[in-house]
Amino acid sequence: MSLRYAVVGPGALGGFYGGMLAHSGQEVHFLFNSDYKFVKENGLKVDSIYGDFHLHNVLAYNKAETMPACDVVLVCLKTIRNGLLKNIIPAITHKDSLVILIQNGLGVEEDVSKQFPNLNIAGGLAFICSNKIGPGHIAHLDYGKLNLGVYRMNDPAILQKVCDDFNRAGVPTEYSSDLIKSRWQKLVWNIPFNGMTVVMNATTDQLIQNKDIRQLVYDMMLEVVTAANHCGVALKVDYAHNMIDLTEKMTSYAPSMRLDYDNKRPMEIEYIYSRPVHEAKKAGFDMKKVAMLEKQLRYIQTTY
Amino acid sequence: MSLRYAVVGPGALGGFYGGMLAHSGQEVHFLFNSDYKFVKENGLKVDSIYGDFHLHNVLAYNKAETMPACDVVLVCLKTIRNGLLKNIIPAITHKDSLVILIQNGLGVEEDVSKQFPNLNIAGGLAFICSNKIGPGHIAHLDYGKLNLGVYRMNDPAILQKVCDDFNRAGVPTEYSSDLIKSRWQKLVWNIPFNGMTVVMNATTDQLIQNKDIRQLVYDMMLEVVTAANHCGVALKVDYAHNMIDLTEKMTSYAPSMRLDYDNKRPMEIEYIYSRPVHEAKKAGFDMKKVAMLEKQLRYIQTTY
Repeated sequence: MSLRYAVVGPGALGGFYGGMLAHSGQEVHFLFNSDYKFVKENGLKVDSIYGDFHLHNVLAYNKAETMPACDVVLVCLKTIRNGLLKNIIPAITHKDSLVILIQNGLGVEEDVSKQFPNLNIAGGLAFICSNKIGPGHIAHLDYGKLNLGVYRMNDPAILQKVCDDFNRAGVPTEYSSDLIKSRWQKLVWNIPFNGMTVVMNATTDQLIQNKDIRQLVYDMMLEVVTAANHCGVALKVDYAHNMIDLTEKMTSYAPSMRLDYDNKRPMEIEYIYSRPVHEAKKAGFDMKKVAMLEKQLRYIQTTY
Repeated sequence: MSLRYAVVGPGALGGFYGGMLAHSGQEVHFLFNSDYKFVKENGLKVDSIYGDFHLHNVLAYNKAETMPACDVVLVCLKTIRNGLLKNIIPAITHKDSLVILIQNGLGVEEDVSKQFPNLNIAGGLAFICSNKIGPGHIAHLDYGKLNLGVYRMNDPAILQKVCDDFNRAGVPTEYSSDLIKSRWQKLVWNIPFNGMTVVMNATTDQLIQNKDIRQLVYDMMLEVVTAANHCGVALKVDYAHNMIDLTEKMTSYAPSMRLDYDNKRPMEIEYIYSRPVHEAKKAGFDMKKVAMLEKQLRYIQTTY
């Protein structure tokens, strides 16, 4: 029996991952916002390093109430728009549905689970460089791996089936046995580089090539590793080393927060910064440098 | 017997303080750089809240070798130009001369004293809002107090005489019995506000009105107080409170480092940031937030 998918917020991430599933023959219902009319008429175009494709006849919607109940809901919204889920999730789920939050930061599953105490919830981490370059037009530039892990589920086997569907669709997808650890791991890179590319108005390569900033970035990565350890997550210092090496080899890159800043959109400060700082503090560790970056970002957020 | 003064670097500070002394009848020799010709022909103009004046027939020079030996040398250069002192000081001093470093930060006296092991050295802290608004033209906008303290002197009585000369000239001047403490005190304000106005591209009032930045500024002030305590200087936490209150009442202000940044001049990172961070580390205290700001400033310095 095949799963019926929904994608909430089909932008750079959701347009690509949902598009790949639909392209492979899965039934995927897309809840669009501003792009609805365009996609309804012109379809969804994906330029990908895995191969370009153009989906005609997309199952596109602009109202959750008009969608069918789906087995798996991929939430690909920016976390700052998670307030929308309150109305969307009840409209597009049945009692056994699984909601997968493919979002950045820490604590998103916790917050959604408080709103929906009986909902099956998983989390997803996207290791991808992908941009929306026009209405219904996604450019997938590099990487693409997806990492999915259980947060709270009656039957975790469904998540394994989702992994299989993605892999069959050509998206390299891993089943993470420790979602919270995966989230902290991604934060090791995301915390220094998302914020510092905004505050320093720079790209990753400009930052990593400067010896003072490379040291500062590394110090912040160590703060993330130490915070994770205090929160009972076994991350190693080596992981920070690896992230520095990886970034030195990476091409010039503007992370999502920098793009949000450039386009005067709200930044995901809450889940990428405030929540980890808060969780670490509860566990007895003060992330001094990361908390400073958080405050600088909060100020910058008020200036536009 | 009256003292013969020299002013090295008569800009916003030296033009004002030297100008006040000359205006009161003291013999003051000014070593100019780019303004030499203009001042030789047009004199030195000071618009001051203490009263405007225009000095004609200024004792102006553009080469230290053509100046007479002076009893008191007021060094009012930006610290980033202290390399010039190596040639200037021998040319304009005699064996009993006193050199007063009216400069920002920590460690300037130490570095000059290493270069000149037998020199009488004092330090000065200027609590003033003053700008150079054109060649030979100084605008003194607010405050003005001078704080002078002994670093190493054969006869400290001379510094008392300098204080008297300044007070007679209309500059409220105090004799500090603890120069290093005075320097740390000034850093409590200078460290957060000089750097943060640059990194956040803001004025002091914009920063202090934002609750996240006010907290961060206060945290950095506490780091300076704690660092001072580790270095054997008895500063109190109250002092940080007072500086926050003072800044809340202050008009919109761009500190000297922000003006340096706006005008693409090198910033005084070394003596305002690196040296205090280094001294605190030697004394066993890690100024984490201040060290982060230092690194952000060093990066910004490379971008212009």
